[in-house]
Amino acid sequence: MRVFIAGIDGYLGWPLAVYLSARGHQVAGADLLLRREWVAEVGGISALPIASREQRMAAFKEVAGVELDFRVGDLTDYAFVKRFFAEFQPEAVVHLGQMPSAPYSMMDRAHCVWTQQNNIVNNLNLLWAIKEAAPDAHLIKLGTMGEYGTPAIDIPEGFFDVEFRGRKDRLPFPRQAGSWYHQSKVHDSHNTHFASKIWGIRATDIMQGVVFGTRIEAMGADPRLGTRLDFDQCFGTAINRFCCQAVIGHPLTLYGLGGQKRGFLPLADSMQCLGLAIENPPGAGEYRVFNQFENAYSISELACLVQEVAASIDIAVEIRRYDNPRAEMEEHYYNPDRQHLIDLGYQPTHDMRSVLKAMLLELLANKDRIEAHADVLIPDIRWGGGRKRSEVIG
Amino acid sequence: MRVFIAGIDGYLGWPLAVYLSARGHQVAGADLLLRREWVAEVGGISALPIASREQRMAAFKEVAGVELDFRVGDLTDYAFVKRFFAEFQPEAVVHLGQMPSAPYSMMDRAHCVWTQQNNIVNNLNLLWAIKEAAPDAHLIKLGTMGEYGTPAIDIPEGFFDVEFRGRKDRLPFPRQAGSWYHQSKVHDSHNTHFASKIWGIRATDIMQGVVFGTRIEAMGADPRLGTRLDFDQCFGTAINRFCCQAVIGHPLTLYGLGGQKRGFLPLADSMQCLGLAIENPPGAGEYRVFNQFENAYSISELACLVQEVAASIDIAVEIRRYDNPRAEMEEHYYNPDRQHLIDLGYQPTHDMRSVLKAMLLELLANKDRIEAHADVLIPDIRWGGGRKRSEVIG
Repeated sequence: MRVFIAGIDGYLGWPLAVYLSARGHQVAGADLLLRREWVAEVGGISALPIASREQRMAAFKEVAGVELDFRVGDLTDYAFVKRFFAEFQPEAVVHLGQMPSAPYSMMDRAHCVWTQQNNIVNNLNLLWAIKEAAPDAHLIKLGTMGEYGTPAIDIPEGFFDVEFRGRKDRLPFPRQAGSWYHQSKVHDSHNTHFASKIWGIRATDIMQGVVFGTRIEAMGADPRLGTRLDFDQCFGTAINRFCCQAVIGHPLTLYGLGGQKRGFLPLADSMQCLGLAIENPPGAGEYRVFNQFENAYSISELACLVQEVAASIDIAVEIRRYDNPRAEMEEHYYNPDRQHLIDLGYQPTHDMRSVLKAMLLELLANKDRIEAHADVLIPDIRWGGGRKRSEVIG
Repeated sequence: MRVFIAGIDGYLGWPLAVYLSARGHQVAGADLLLRREWVAEVGGISALPIASREQRMAAFKEVAGVELDFRVGDLTDYAFVKRFFAEFQPEAVVHLGQMPSAPYSMMDRAHCVWTQQNNIVNNLNLLWAIKEAAPDAHLIKLGTMGEYGTPAIDIPEGFFDVEFRGRKDRLPFPRQAGSWYHQSKVHDSHNTHFASKIWGIRATDIMQGVVFGTRIEAMGADPRLGTRLDFDQCFGTAINRFCCQAVIGHPLTLYGLGGQKRGFLPLADSMQCLGLAIENPPGAGEYRVFNQFENAYSISELACLVQEVAASIDIAVEIRRYDNPRAEMEEHYYNPDRQHLIDLGYQPTHDMRSVLKAMLLELLANKDRIEAHADVLIPDIRWGGGRKRSEVIG
């Protein structure tokens, strides 16, 4: 299948190119390489060294035996997107090409507006380019479980049956996102659903949990096929950040009580799920929503797990509570569905300990990189506005 | 009260300035005068001649006895908005400054993207300017009843109590908007609700029905205080368009079956309701949603009413069905709540016939303007894409 990856240089985009190619698909993609700039902007660095675009393309050719059509371009530039689609004629379009950080979007007005403008416009451009240049293509749009927020009821996959004042309807499940970034994804979900209705676009809207991990099998031993791993307050998500903290002996940073629950999944599971979505497209005009995660965990539970696995390889690390820079509930009900991908054959990696152990060992070999940037481990971007470094509260 | 009107030159913005000033409020506002350009772009013209900005300001000064601070400026230019707020220190901010047409947003990719970008960015700018320059100000954000779409259950005012799998929560009512423009309003509602949560902004999100009419009492006899009235396929909304069609003897244009139901309200009711929202602000951090309309009517019912009132002043007009350029249900359940404004004292104008009669007489005196632009009465902007003039189907 011809698969176009928007954001092919990113944490997920690059492994997806490697994974899909290994499964026999023809991959092409675009990226403006902004993730590399954003991480530098906030003082971070990938804990694992990553290859340049040119090195990645060379490695891809050696391993896959084909040229990778990986173009540097801006998805908010419609002419670029439409031309690419007209030439490549994608059968599937995976949209990973957005600014993906909540704290980055919360920094100030400029970052808030830029995030929403960039994400909304580039998603609209993909929808229009599918309509105008590749109308049968299947859009796999990366949303986030964060779109739903933390309602006090179960979270279905996109839609639910409601009874209200004696009448019934099937409605989109309400979204209550907790950052300007997450809101941009909510807007994209609404726009994608609408495009599917009026133009018959086939779309899978993926509400993905937080991804962690560094490896998938298809990367093999070639370091140029590896992906990035961030640990700064903006781009370092919970488990990845904990593992980086552990290997340099920095306390694991819980925000507030640590009772926040979220869906998580290993990188290999994310690839497996995206592959299933791509290889099992919906019908024309069908808009479907997949909740994509291995399981739901509380943040403090995960910190304890990282602590335990670290101890097993003789790394001692503390867990500390920091005052929470975010506005979020720290103890709450959380029970999201995750059946659609299981029905397609998703086999969750239940052995989280071995994933964590592999990560910790790989990061240990790169601890100098993390130590040199350790000041980005403590958050200071406040949901209420402004910057103030979080302090230890317990 | 100091009230800032974003979009003060528009169909609603201008009468609101006149209305609030007559009630003793201090009004200021901004507008980029784009509505005048958009209507010209689609080949339309205001059926009623309207004064220039300078003439409006002069008339305002003569009538109200004070200078009107009416600046030409772009709300997507944050420096402009923030400076204005810092100087004027608004206590209320009414946001009418957006691109308000569904068909205009559906024309092509450029109009779709421009609409969403403009509306989302300027709403974010108002939120940020309130936070940074006037944190106690009350935002009155104009949304639209169209945000809800046409679910098969009652439509509450913004939120509803849900029971799902044995658990209960109070959730935002799901939005299912039917155009790129309406989607932009959905995005604004989500962003506004979130800003209210994290920054404590007091906000009233108004889901307004379709406004019709030309007059409010405070305009008096000065024609410079009058507002515009559009009848083209983009900016001419149902009743206004029917009345313009009637006075030139053009058949009233129903789209499809005409069983589409929507909330409607006279211009005077819109002003009354906005006044009530402004004069009864919510508490700090409160985000409330008002459904704002006089009553729900089907389009064919309204066409019959216009036909009947026109006949009473000796204008004979036919009603014709045209193939529907939109993707929408043409027969459906529709039962939205409208209690919050009633609780604040809203007294609906139930005598629609006298409003229509006054409109028809005023338009009759300007029938030459309508006749000269009669080719914009038939829609050709298709929800499925492209342009094709609708044809009579019954």
